[in-house]
Amino acid sequence: MGKHTIHIGILGVGTVGTGVARILTEQKDLLRTRTSTAFQLKTLVDIDWQRERHLDLTGIKTSTLAGEILDDPEIDIVIETMGGDEPACSFIKQALLNGKHVVTANKALIATRGRELFKLAKENHVDLMFEASVGGGIPIIKGLREGLVANNILSIYSIINGTSNYILTRMHQDQLSFGEALAQAQEKGFAEADPTLDIGGGDAAHKLTILASIASSTLVDFKDVYVEGITDLTQLDVNFARQFGCVVKLLAIYRNTEEGLDLRVHPTLVPQNHLLAAVSNELNAIFVNGDFVGSTMFYGPGAGERPTGSAIVSDLVDLSRDLLLKEGQRFCNRAIDITRTARMIPIQKVSNRFYLRLFTMDKPGILSQISGVLGRFNISISSVLQLESHGADGSIPLVILTHKAGEEDMSRAIAEISSFPFIRDKVFRMRLF
Amino acid sequence: MGKHTIHIGILGVGTVGTGVARILTEQKDLLRTRTSTAFQLKTLVDIDWQRERHLDLTGIKTSTLAGEILDDPEIDIVIETMGGDEPACSFIKQALLNGKHVVTANKALIATRGRELFKLAKENHVDLMFEASVGGGIPIIKGLREGLVANNILSIYSIINGTSNYILTRMHQDQLSFGEALAQAQEKGFAEADPTLDIGGGDAAHKLTILASIASSTLVDFKDVYVEGITDLTQLDVNFARQFGCVVKLLAIYRNTEEGLDLRVHPTLVPQNHLLAAVSNELNAIFVNGDFVGSTMFYGPGAGERPTGSAIVSDLVDLSRDLLLKEGQRFCNRAIDITRTARMIPIQKVSNRFYLRLFTMDKPGILSQISGVLGRFNISISSVLQLESHGADGSIPLVILTHKAGEEDMSRAIAEISSFPFIRDKVFRMRLF
Repeated sequence: MGKHTIHIGILGVGTVGTGVARILTEQKDLLRTRTSTAFQLKTLVDIDWQRERHLDLTGIKTSTLAGEILDDPEIDIVIETMGGDEPACSFIKQALLNGKHVVTANKALIATRGRELFKLAKENHVDLMFEASVGGGIPIIKGLREGLVANNILSIYSIINGTSNYILTRMHQDQLSFGEALAQAQEKGFAEADPTLDIGGGDAAHKLTILASIASSTLVDFKDVYVEGITDLTQLDVNFARQFGCVVKLLAIYRNTEEGLDLRVHPTLVPQNHLLAAVSNELNAIFVNGDFVGSTMFYGPGAGERPTGSAIVSDLVDLSRDLLLKEGQRFCNRAIDITRTARMIPIQKVSNRFYLRLFTMDKPGILSQISGVLGRFNISISSVLQLESHGADGSIPLVILTHKAGEEDMSRAIAEISSFPFIRDKVFRMRLF
Repeated sequence: MGKHTIHIGILGVGTVGTGVARILTEQKDLLRTRTSTAFQLKTLVDIDWQRERHLDLTGIKTSTLAGEILDDPEIDIVIETMGGDEPACSFIKQALLNGKHVVTANKALIATRGRELFKLAKENHVDLMFEASVGGGIPIIKGLREGLVANNILSIYSIINGTSNYILTRMHQDQLSFGEALAQAQEKGFAEADPTLDIGGGDAAHKLTILASIASSTLVDFKDVYVEGITDLTQLDVNFARQFGCVVKLLAIYRNTEEGLDLRVHPTLVPQNHLLAAVSNELNAIFVNGDFVGSTMFYGPGAGERPTGSAIVSDLVDLSRDLLLKEGQRFCNRAIDITRTARMIPIQKVSNRFYLRLFTMDKPGILSQISGVLGRFNISISSVLQLESHGADGSIPLVILTHKAGEEDMSRAIAEISSFPFIRDKVFRMRLF
């Protein structure tokens, strides 16, 4: 009935690391009761020990040197919550080499350097866990890997960047411009000073890479994800979307088709009556279709000290069980087979329904010329909306919804349309759900 | 790196049992790749072998005798998908006594006889798993027990009876009466010939008992759940709810308060902008609040051959891991400590906001008499709605929304109001979310 003790070190005591430390101190008894294991927080490493973290550090060693954790033979599990590429990556590798299990929230690392990290973990007979890397407190990694283990995952439609979702919600609900909404997100702490990774779609693409790897049981390459952010979206588009009964969401999409995996992140028109349309503010949701389970959705906070801490501690508990097994019997890392590579469909080969927003001069015959080009590329129009209002240069906004059309056809049609002399500004394209 | 083989028997090859058998045959390779375990379906037992199940039974023994599974020393795991009380309960007990692990979808058994079953499992060093007992294919048991293991669960608001949710959706969307909607649910196979357990709230209460046991890590007694069904709900109430910006849902509620656990199932007015309001038709959703994670929601199909099969097979995979551990190291059944009993708050001690619907004769002074009674019981009114339309007997419907009021006060107020000579029909009460 061995009650056992697991010694833990945390590298990086920022927002997430503080959350983990708080749970390990405040929920110590709860965890012990539920798991018969003592999770002993031994050492915290951070470069800044001036900052007030409101933690009870009694009996916990604090240091500025990673070696205090990496080289401590008593420490079983290293939690990496520093973020960024280096030195986080080197520290994780050293921990694995030293035979320590690693839990990380670092989506960028897992998405871009997963192959070498998982390989190193395997070679050293340890596990590398990453529940907190996608969807913050939502147990989506566990849900996919274990809860839906009986299913081929057919598709995933997910809102996994809280910053973008917050901005889109403000644009929809408060009629803010993109810039105003971004400023508000930064004010409220939902966006970094440099928001490029969030609003450009890169963060969502990192997370999608991880979801796709588990869903396909192969190691997906981050570079295979097609990425568009929300930076070109305007208040006008949000209002047009509403007129079509839709909400604009930045979706990270996984589709397992007969031709291969279709992976993309882009702003998408989601029908107002779909559950994903109701996911507001900084919240996240992952809508998963499995061949047996059908449609399921996992919803919750995608970031923050306490939710992300909750996810990391669930990894600790899983590890505490797996530590009792021999290496070959362990489950966690088996979900991604790094020796297998999935076949991909390049975006050019995918078909979608499209939303096009153009600014044209107000002259007769223009719509016929535009639809002529679309027709030549086998793109048929399902709706057209034209507003009375004129832009500063006298141009008018025109919105076209199409039926399903090939991505390559659409790109070529847009290039041709853009070269018409009556077109003002860039032609903006979104996809429909 | 032991690839191992686990032998499985299924008791009861109805809808759910067929789903499990289908997964174990059709997804055999998928499961083997993902888990390094061969899940060998050895024996199926059912009383009816005339029915066409569209299963490939090559190499699988079929029988009408439970003993073919219970007494087979090669069988490691028994799946009970017969449903009902007896003989299912005796078969489960015999399996546990014979040292076999048991996976069941039988919510009524777990909710009403959990104590003896879990005790027997513990005494015989085996596990009793029940992911499929709540929320069909949604991995909510795993989510609560493992994904949110770091959290005290503060509250759960759940839609866990698909039949009722289907009926309510039809009443809202298609303006059907309760009877018409029930008939349609039966036609579509979402409701049993005898729908009492579903529309009376008993089925939801069974499932809530199980959720509450895991959330509280104690064994909750089914008899402590307060239950009201949806049988008294009319089309009128659905329309009144809409005028208040709400949707009526049958919610199963768990609240962990300082005074004890508050457990109830009743029709509830849910604001239209809450995510639970968007859960339509036969779908289920469990909205969980944890002290670290915050608000999360798990959504998906709550019943059916394929989703429920998916949940049972996830239990099989978990068991295959736990089988490698010694009994005291196992995790699954540790989530419910059967030696502990939670403190309960009786419904009389709870406060809620209320919706009251009355039919009164159309005379002056009536509202003042009704509000007089409410006032004497410290119940203050937040809105009143009175329709022009008259009933057959000349009575008019009157709806009152209250601020927070004690359940006991409300029951006594309703009793007093009901005795007024101008009141027609029963006074109908619902709670607000």
